[in-house]
Amino acid sequence: MIIARIHVTLKQSVLDPQGTAVTKSLHALGYQEVSDVRIGKFLEVKVDTTDKAQANERITEMCEKLLANTVIETYEFELVEA
Amino acid sequence: MIIARIHVTLKQSVLDPQGTAVTKSLHALGYQEVSDVRIGKFLEVKVDTTDKAQANERITEMCEKLLANTVIETYEFELVEA
Repeated sequence: MIIARIHVTLKQSVLDPQGTAVTKSLHALGYQEVSDVRIGKFLEVKVDTTDKAQANERITEMCEKLLANTVIETYEFELVEA
Repeated sequence: MIIARIHVTLKQSVLDPQGTAVTKSLHALGYQEVSDVRIGKFLEVKVDTTDKAQANERITEMCEKLLANTVIETYEFELVEA
């Protein structure tokens, strides 16, 4: 069993209105030291295999096809044996 | 400048319908080896300070008050100097 820990984040050039809203909320709560918030997704995908090289290839495909919108998002992942 | 990399995930005991939907979509795309998907949030919070101990305390407060719903979610974070 392998677990892929995947981070999907907006590209730096893409506006993040959700992050801006959270920044404003944190300021309103008195956390003036916060200068920026970016919000992305974190996915844990459990895969029934022990072949790390194959898992790497398949997870990359899943990210490209479904998990990330590569027009506006980037992804990175690490594989952990469980 | 310190960047807090925060993971907010649903507690194990809480159902994750979004994760279930993604699991089904991956199966439909032919990725039968996927046995489970859990989806959480990933936040990068930039803080204007150099005091790591203080940042640690303040980020914990932000998570408790705003960033995570501690009834159903857990959070963990690491601080990176930028």
